[in-house]
Amino acid sequence: MAFESKIRPITWENGKSKMIDQTIIPYEYKYIEITSGDDMFNAIRNMIVRGAPAIGIAGAQGIVLYAQEGRGKYNNIDEFKAYLLEKADYMATSRPTAVNLMWACEEQRKIIKNSCSDMQGLIKELTDKAIEIELDDINRCKLMGDFGAEVVPKGATILTHCNAGALATGGYGTALGVIRSAFAKDNTIQVFADETRPRQQGARLTTFELAMDGIPVTLITDGMCSYFMNKGMIDMVIVGADRIAANGDTANKIGTYTVAIAAKYHNIPFYVAAPLSTIDISIKTGAEIPIEERAKEEVTHINGERICALEGVNIINPGFDVTPNELIAGIITEKGILRPDYKKSIAEVFNK
Amino acid sequence: MAFESKIRPITWENGKSKMIDQTIIPYEYKYIEITSGDDMFNAIRNMIVRGAPAIGIAGAQGIVLYAQEGRGKYNNIDEFKAYLLEKADYMATSRPTAVNLMWACEEQRKIIKNSCSDMQGLIKELTDKAIEIELDDINRCKLMGDFGAEVVPKGATILTHCNAGALATGGYGTALGVIRSAFAKDNTIQVFADETRPRQQGARLTTFELAMDGIPVTLITDGMCSYFMNKGMIDMVIVGADRIAANGDTANKIGTYTVAIAAKYHNIPFYVAAPLSTIDISIKTGAEIPIEERAKEEVTHINGERICALEGVNIINPGFDVTPNELIAGIITEKGILRPDYKKSIAEVFNK
Repeated sequence: MAFESKIRPITWENGKSKMIDQTIIPYEYKYIEITSGDDMFNAIRNMIVRGAPAIGIAGAQGIVLYAQEGRGKYNNIDEFKAYLLEKADYMATSRPTAVNLMWACEEQRKIIKNSCSDMQGLIKELTDKAIEIELDDINRCKLMGDFGAEVVPKGATILTHCNAGALATGGYGTALGVIRSAFAKDNTIQVFADETRPRQQGARLTTFELAMDGIPVTLITDGMCSYFMNKGMIDMVIVGADRIAANGDTANKIGTYTVAIAAKYHNIPFYVAAPLSTIDISIKTGAEIPIEERAKEEVTHINGERICALEGVNIINPGFDVTPNELIAGIITEKGILRPDYKKSIAEVFNK
Repeated sequence: MAFESKIRPITWENGKSKMIDQTIIPYEYKYIEITSGDDMFNAIRNMIVRGAPAIGIAGAQGIVLYAQEGRGKYNNIDEFKAYLLEKADYMATSRPTAVNLMWACEEQRKIIKNSCSDMQGLIKELTDKAIEIELDDINRCKLMGDFGAEVVPKGATILTHCNAGALATGGYGTALGVIRSAFAKDNTIQVFADETRPRQQGARLTTFELAMDGIPVTLITDGMCSYFMNKGMIDMVIVGADRIAANGDTANKIGTYTVAIAAKYHNIPFYVAAPLSTIDISIKTGAEIPIEERAKEEVTHINGERICALEGVNIINPGFDVTPNELIAGIITEKGILRPDYKKSIAEVFNK
């Protein structure tokens, strides 16, 4: 049973990308238009659009925007294709950790390489693909929601980290998609949202979108999870993923791994919800996942004010961490819930 | 070997309390004077002065301030004593979790009850006690530092949570006192400081005081600890304590318990540094320690700006959590390092 969310973070309208500016939620809630490839690259890098599935959609759209820009500049289709392949490679570097972005850029690369159309026709094919990726994502999230809702106990309190919600996807959510589907069946469930420092996606985005959809949510700071687990106030954890290795090791927003360890210590099941496009079977373990290092200012400044000493303080700001497969009770996908041994269950679902 | 810190957060000067306003560090670093008992009560409640040992000193001074105020108002010493006992009880309620505050107020109560002096003489006795508590605290921290430095490996990176530093004590620190003493012996050690949401004592205070004393410090957010532990970048954890039960269970700033679980998962030793006055042998286990619930705004607002949705978001803000004794490698006190079984080692040190 699918729940109808009010949120549609990124869509394609009149030859342009229309997206919610996620850097200003909850202070403002507004749509902006992205009309050039470079602007899309920056929108991804600066997290105006964020969340692994959503930046996959954004990357696919960005290549369409480059195609529209390049159309008048090239004399023949081969030069046009060479230009587009270069831009597709470039777009894939806007954020390094999420595999969906690379996957979406690769989908567009395949079209560029294999298309027999003229420039106009190729642009049409790329546009259709971007829209298809967007709509497919919503469908996949709803399927994940159906599978995931099965493992949510009646009246459960679910802890989540970061924002794996409608805002992170085409418009339903992975982790929060499961919660939406569970809530449609049982409106006594509730959510605890980790703030998710440094960028506070939990506080700013997850509380915002759940409140907007009428799902009860309690905001806690990242260090509090164990306190509430110990009190018996958390029944399960569900998070999203930016990249999953062939053995189930899962890269997700920094802080996820700490929550997973705390869940294990309290014997609370820890689930990952992600489409199969998040699984990168080309890498064996999480050790191979590149971890993005982000700007120091995300840690040292809050709302523009510096929160630590001016001199003599060092900063390291990894954007993601890797939760080892041994801490994960199940990976909720659009094809069902994968269980340990993940090496086996992931290989099986990809070989079907 | 003791290190000389530049910081003296609370002292008694010319019949008044002189303290660093810790709510405005690192934006400003300035001393304020507290001249009335009620102002001291509010300074403790609002965390202008904070840290278990420091608020013990503050509580003792606050009772002196009440005594100075009451002097002209009572006709005889019995009425004066009755008034003072009531104020001592009241002062002890300014923050509920730290036992040092209760201990210091009880020390003053004993003087009030047992003194044979006149009003002026009683005020002198209370003043002497407040100064004694302050100086004793610095000495105790230096003793703790000596014992603790013994277990710090050469070149170690030490993770700490919140601020158990010079700013939290008479001026040397418990956890950071151990670090100061270790640094005096081996200047290749370094510190990782958890930000410590919601009030960011790690980011605001710990980085500030370590940078001021020239000890290398890296600021991380609370969720990052496991990431760095997994990378082999953390050799040990040392934190302070607000109250320790007779079995070693330790109440400290919210988030400490999560760090302790992460340390256990990575086989990294987790130490508590606290004077014996922090141990409350009247309570058997951590379950009996009252946990202060603080204002929602500490979580929902950062630098005055709201960070979550305006409506439909619930908040719970426990100020402390309890780390069970099984996660603690040792409790560093002024009488040596207590080891498991804590029920036994704590009983022994108190019966000596």
